[in-house]
Amino acid sequence: MSLLVIGTVAFDEVETPRGKTGKILGGAGTFIGLAASHLMDDIRIVSVVGGDFPEEHMNLLKKHNIDTQGIKVIPEGKTFFWAGRYHENMNNRDTLATELNVLADFDPVLPEEYKNSEYLMLGNLTPAIQKKVIQQMAKRPKLICMDTMNFWMDVALDDLLEVITMVDVLTINDEEARQLSGEYSLVTAARKILTMGPRYLIVKKGEHGALLFYEDKIFHAPAMPLEDVFDPTGAGDTFAGGFMGQIARNGDTGFENMKRALIYGSALASFTVEKFGTDRLVEISKEDIANRLEAFVKLTAFEI
Amino acid sequence: MSLLVIGTVAFDEVETPRGKTGKILGGAGTFIGLAASHLMDDIRIVSVVGGDFPEEHMNLLKKHNIDTQGIKVIPEGKTFFWAGRYHENMNNRDTLATELNVLADFDPVLPEEYKNSEYLMLGNLTPAIQKKVIQQMAKRPKLICMDTMNFWMDVALDDLLEVITMVDVLTINDEEARQLSGEYSLVTAARKILTMGPRYLIVKKGEHGALLFYEDKIFHAPAMPLEDVFDPTGAGDTFAGGFMGQIARNGDTGFENMKRALIYGSALASFTVEKFGTDRLVEISKEDIANRLEAFVKLTAFEI
Repeated sequence: MSLLVIGTVAFDEVETPRGKTGKILGGAGTFIGLAASHLMDDIRIVSVVGGDFPEEHMNLLKKHNIDTQGIKVIPEGKTFFWAGRYHENMNNRDTLATELNVLADFDPVLPEEYKNSEYLMLGNLTPAIQKKVIQQMAKRPKLICMDTMNFWMDVALDDLLEVITMVDVLTINDEEARQLSGEYSLVTAARKILTMGPRYLIVKKGEHGALLFYEDKIFHAPAMPLEDVFDPTGAGDTFAGGFMGQIARNGDTGFENMKRALIYGSALASFTVEKFGTDRLVEISKEDIANRLEAFVKLTAFEI
Repeated sequence: MSLLVIGTVAFDEVETPRGKTGKILGGAGTFIGLAASHLMDDIRIVSVVGGDFPEEHMNLLKKHNIDTQGIKVIPEGKTFFWAGRYHENMNNRDTLATELNVLADFDPVLPEEYKNSEYLMLGNLTPAIQKKVIQQMAKRPKLICMDTMNFWMDVALDDLLEVITMVDVLTINDEEARQLSGEYSLVTAARKILTMGPRYLIVKKGEHGALLFYEDKIFHAPAMPLEDVFDPTGAGDTFAGGFMGQIARNGDTGFENMKRALIYGSALASFTVEKFGTDRLVEISKEDIANRLEAFVKLTAFEI
């Protein structure tokens, strides 16, 4: 099974109550790809970077069996850069810098061999770009999952509403679900959003877990309570990558596997926050993941 | 099995985005007792009310097999009264009035036949009163559960710290767990609080569910996502009542039954918020509860 990922490959600079980084590897595409790489092999990323993007970062992706030929390098350009500072509660953050750089003119062109990818994960980007990617596919992927955010609801709502008619799964956070639907209750919000196009809605609630809505069914995946959250950057993208990785791995888009995929996504995300950037995500073993999945079973199992 | 409940029996006046009530039946003891009454029979409440407390409210408690001889009536006094207004998100509320009235001089004296109660639920009250109740017990109950709040941490911390050495289960919300421990991470906070006396800690997270901490184990009970939350008043007390009701019912204080009890508490609390005050809690049937418990299984069940 093959998974095509569209998303930023970027530099992050992060300050949390636990410390401060220099310019490190970040970006939605990076976290999605690395997370999925723990579950499957055939992963392709479409993105853009500048001439300042180090070979070592590119090699890290390749080492994780990620095909990087879709990452366009613009030698005279600079890589997308984001800097932020987290508050003590790790849920709120201030953006200190957003330098779009080469991302400002990102116009994704899919390599021929990517156009038959069976699964497609659209990271959080301009809806117009997400649409362009879908349109380049040679055949409809078995499942298209799309992440987005409140910013696009504010500045590109029409485009956004069009793209979500083209996808199977939409992932947004609770506030965004409320904004998109105009409904406060998440259940009512979800019901409304499921009439807008997607068959599945995932509502991300950060440290409070995530909800999956499908028809009249609801599934709740908790977040793993952790002793120390080091850096939340990339947790949502890791979640999406783990989710799609699990689905692409066994090719099952039924509700039972969707639920399982939510737990895989949550498990991988719980690693990402344990260290800065991708540090933890790239070092974990299959055994670490199996143990964490087992911890999720223990965290939630009960008998009536 | 017998459950002794100490808590307010009171008047509430509630305003939510869904409407406004007049003076209705409320109080922690009321919600705890009514919730437990769905699971077991032998429930006793110790509380105090004024001469203005209507016979009809007392009869409602009796109708639910709650022994009310421990509810002292002070004919010349007025019943404790709380009025509050909830914001759109239902998590924040403004207190509009708190009239202690007869509660100001509440000095609980246990009827003789209450002193051998096997289970004891201490609703949120002055720690000194909670202590007095424990000291009046003829023998140590099989399980003592205590609810408290940030207010007592601010004004009566020493008393509070003494009482929590005397109980088995402490229930507080996430912010209170952080305040009591001085730790931001709930895992670290819980570890610290479990060295202060209680064997079990329940951290209530409102619409995000609850966490149970025991030794190095953690269990997460979600809240049921609801289409419409009408009035959150009493949800936490209903949760505690359902929790203790389930434990007192089968007399099992092991971790597996504690987890189950958390789900029972969550299920009953999910009814309370569906109507104003106790309206929903008093009308539900055994079948309603069984169906809701089944909904919790569906909400959380997955296979790795």
